[in-house]
Amino acid sequence: MNNWYTENWTKETKFSIKYDEHIISKQTPYQKIDFYKSNEWGTFFTLDDLMMVTQKDEFIYHDMIVHPAMCTNPNIKKVLVIGGGDGGTVRELCRYNTINHIDMVEIDEEVVILSKKYLPQTASKLDDSRVNLHFKDGLDFVKKTNPGTYDLILVDSTDPIGPGEGLFTTEFYSNCYKALSDTGILINQHESPYFKEYSDQMQKAHTKINKIFPITHVYQFHVATYPSGHWLFGFASKSKDPLKDFNPECWNKLNLKTKYYNTDIHSGSFMLPSYVKELLNLKDSLN
Amino acid sequence: MNNWYTENWTKETKFSIKYDEHIISKQTPYQKIDFYKSNEWGTFFTLDDLMMVTQKDEFIYHDMIVHPAMCTNPNIKKVLVIGGGDGGTVRELCRYNTINHIDMVEIDEEVVILSKKYLPQTASKLDDSRVNLHFKDGLDFVKKTNPGTYDLILVDSTDPIGPGEGLFTTEFYSNCYKALSDTGILINQHESPYFKEYSDQMQKAHTKINKIFPITHVYQFHVATYPSGHWLFGFASKSKDPLKDFNPECWNKLNLKTKYYNTDIHSGSFMLPSYVKELLNLKDSLN
Repeated sequence: MNNWYTENWTKETKFSIKYDEHIISKQTPYQKIDFYKSNEWGTFFTLDDLMMVTQKDEFIYHDMIVHPAMCTNPNIKKVLVIGGGDGGTVRELCRYNTINHIDMVEIDEEVVILSKKYLPQTASKLDDSRVNLHFKDGLDFVKKTNPGTYDLILVDSTDPIGPGEGLFTTEFYSNCYKALSDTGILINQHESPYFKEYSDQMQKAHTKINKIFPITHVYQFHVATYPSGHWLFGFASKSKDPLKDFNPECWNKLNLKTKYYNTDIHSGSFMLPSYVKELLNLKDSLN
Repeated sequence: MNNWYTENWTKETKFSIKYDEHIISKQTPYQKIDFYKSNEWGTFFTLDDLMMVTQKDEFIYHDMIVHPAMCTNPNIKKVLVIGGGDGGTVRELCRYNTINHIDMVEIDEEVVILSKKYLPQTASKLDDSRVNLHFKDGLDFVKKTNPGTYDLILVDSTDPIGPGEGLFTTEFYSNCYKALSDTGILINQHESPYFKEYSDQMQKAHTKINKIFPITHVYQFHVATYPSGHWLFGFASKSKDPLKDFNPECWNKLNLKTKYYNTDIHSGSFMLPSYVKELLNLKDSLN
């Protein structure tokens, strides 16, 4: 056996992983889901042939989508996750005893079913009593949410093509704003600054969110299996600033063992290269 | 034409770039040098089939090898560059009027000759009057240097296999220590934390340097064309601390336009993920 999963990061750059077994390929009404088993990366899965999660390094993405917001506001109690069918985001949220309610809205139930079967490492907390799964359209769910319901919304989505497209619109971001409490935080998929195909989406998302939220930041991390390895999340909030309000002492007292996130990299991740700041129209120094 | 340059990042992970022309392939007494021309990445070259520099993103590596040290100590006057045959490191150094002498020790003259011909973007300052080129073995050059000669040594080398091997030894780091002035800084190639093949080298380098220099740090940056995209430099010094002594106001007054480095990312880049800190035995928070 000598099989390689190859992803075209751009038309002229590609990334390949050797796998031992193509476990399953399933077309759902929403997308094509493929699970693979590999020696180096463990089990990994793709949606419409784009890498989502590998067993080897999912900790990076899931640490970085959850902990920066939780360290900024330790009083977060009610959380909404849009997407995130593999369960890794919910798993990290469940480590906080202070969170008492999590709604997870995943459009494609098949992602959850297959993740529970083949990726128990990420799906381990989807049955936690605080977690409520909704197999619905996230855009529609947020629209119908009562104002001020959530302290935190995490958009753990695919790229803005296919089922994830609506999660990159002004309408969606506005509805998130309304659905958030006065101290509410929105963390969203922010693509990559590196290849033009992705940085265009990064710029569009940032411009839209900037018009809606009074506090907006972008933070970065390293994920080797995403195009260029340089990936971003957006941090938007009604009143909490991730650099001024974050509480390292309080978070460190929780004694959570994390493989990527720590209170040093919290601050460090908001410090962006000059070309990224320029693309995002960020002029001021944060130091 | 449909040619791909493919690099095995590990046995089971590879990265590929489409190229239009394989400009030249040359075996020297030290290594095999290949230059390629591509649409997306511009001209790029490899040494022994490992990616060194691409026209598209060389600014990241060269910003990060030079500016953090220069911002930590604006009084650097005399600099030694080991390796760096493409000239990008010297180009960045030459932007500082305060630097009055640069020795560049490159073992393989052919890298300089070919870079001048095919990569004038990086090689543009190799003829600056302050630059002295020595086509010699770096290990031997440093050994014969008078104590206290340089304010800054930059090790712009290949990986610790082939001609770069000696530049990862205790003997070399000790000789660098001796060759540095009282405020001297050593920046060295520190590999990547991500794949075991590289993180083993990272750990070895750090352990050795730690025994010799009183101040040691490691800082990170994103280079999509290096294995995993997550790359590190070591910062070792006799007395200057890159976080306590760095002088953002002074550096910003120089008004140097840089595409990656800025005084925010200076601090941010020293903030490392938990698994990297653990591999390096770094326990304390930097915040």
